[in-house]
Amino acid sequence: MTHTLILLRHGHSVWNEKNIFTGWVDVELTEQGREEGRRAGQLIKDSGLEPRVLYTSLLKRAIHTANIALEVADLDWLPVKRSWRLNERHYGALQGLNKAETLEQHGEELFMTWRRSFDTPPPPLDDDAEYSQVHDPRYVGIDGDMPRTESLKLVIDRMLPYWQSDITKDLAAGNTVLITAHGNSLRALVKHLDGISDDDIAGLNIPTGIPLVYELGDDFMPVKPAEYLDPEAAAAGAAAVASQGKK
Amino acid sequence: MTHTLILLRHGHSVWNEKNIFTGWVDVELTEQGREEGRRAGQLIKDSGLEPRVLYTSLLKRAIHTANIALEVADLDWLPVKRSWRLNERHYGALQGLNKAETLEQHGEELFMTWRRSFDTPPPPLDDDAEYSQVHDPRYVGIDGDMPRTESLKLVIDRMLPYWQSDITKDLAAGNTVLITAHGNSLRALVKHLDGISDDDIAGLNIPTGIPLVYELGDDFMPVKPAEYLDPEAAAAGAAAVASQGKK
Repeated sequence: MTHTLILLRHGHSVWNEKNIFTGWVDVELTEQGREEGRRAGQLIKDSGLEPRVLYTSLLKRAIHTANIALEVADLDWLPVKRSWRLNERHYGALQGLNKAETLEQHGEELFMTWRRSFDTPPPPLDDDAEYSQVHDPRYVGIDGDMPRTESLKLVIDRMLPYWQSDITKDLAAGNTVLITAHGNSLRALVKHLDGISDDDIAGLNIPTGIPLVYELGDDFMPVKPAEYLDPEAAAAGAAAVASQGKK
Repeated sequence: MTHTLILLRHGHSVWNEKNIFTGWVDVELTEQGREEGRRAGQLIKDSGLEPRVLYTSLLKRAIHTANIALEVADLDWLPVKRSWRLNERHYGALQGLNKAETLEQHGEELFMTWRRSFDTPPPPLDDDAEYSQVHDPRYVGIDGDMPRTESLKLVIDRMLPYWQSDITKDLAAGNTVLITAHGNSLRALVKHLDGISDDDIAGLNIPTGIPLVYELGDDFMPVKPAEYLDPEAAAAGAAAVASQGKK
């Protein structure tokens, strides 16, 4: 028996539009992002796949994308599990800063290191900073795990234990699982599933709003390459993500 | 220490509008119903109450009401637990029938018995009927508990065990709980909390879209009378519910 896993990256947000580093800041989807959610729901509905459990991060851009997609797919009733471990990468002191200005101010090398280095996080965000989340009630109970900045490596370190402890249990029970999350928390999982090296993961871009479907064996590793439900749109979307911040 | 419980009945649905018995049929909110959800969210936000767990039924009119209210209250991230035990009363063979026509066809006495009798359910709904839910995937696993019709007594019999096994545990952990559900599943709980007799419960009408707040002691029973967050609107709403089906 194989297990089906569907990954969905949330769509366009108001800080994508303004070209600002977002990370754990809880910004809204734009109307374009809501439309991406509707398209994702339609793709899931048309695919004949039958998700039976939904996982989301604690950020509204992922939660709304899931709500919108499930409404279109007539799956509003799915059991939901949310975790900070599916959150976007914490962008440290860059949270709230304009990407183009940051690029200009710090130069391409440092900018690309912060964006794409596997294990070099940006400078940490001060607990008293405007865009810090340390006093947000949704993170009560995280305590010592609360990040102030993260590299992709640190995202993997907090995301994979949840994959192993919780998500694979739902797959093992025979449930098709839908995870609606973020560029970097999904890259962390895809890196694990596809065995991508620390160097090569920098080149992987996951498009927004297009469900990516894995068929997994009993070891919860892929039995064949994953497929986007709309491969053409996915290729165009990945190219758009790769060029982000360069405007 | 006391525990805070917030009850929210979903707003106007497309079958309220058409004056049709709904029960377990999964109909959408109307725009009026969505507006009631927004008002409820604003009332919760303005109240200073801090719900920390959301419970819903498996029906989209309750789920959407919760999603809309939480979006307005900026609480999208709340942990969510859903259960069929919070569903509306199963209306048996009346599901899908027009209320005015049913009243005319069967007379006021039988009509009021079906609507308000404590322990006389309507005739059961055939498993092959258009508006049966026995083959709906969301109810896989209910098995022997799957109703074909329910009286309010039967709703209490399936709702209260969940109150005791799950909801009171979240209250005991110190979490303010928000339950977004239906006229009869909420009447079942209110009957228990307020010690309303089998006879008197027929006269209790819960208005839609207005949060009802209980302060509970360590025995999870009220330490004082519950209060609506907008008492004036609640009184008007309860009167409107009482006159339903009489048009």
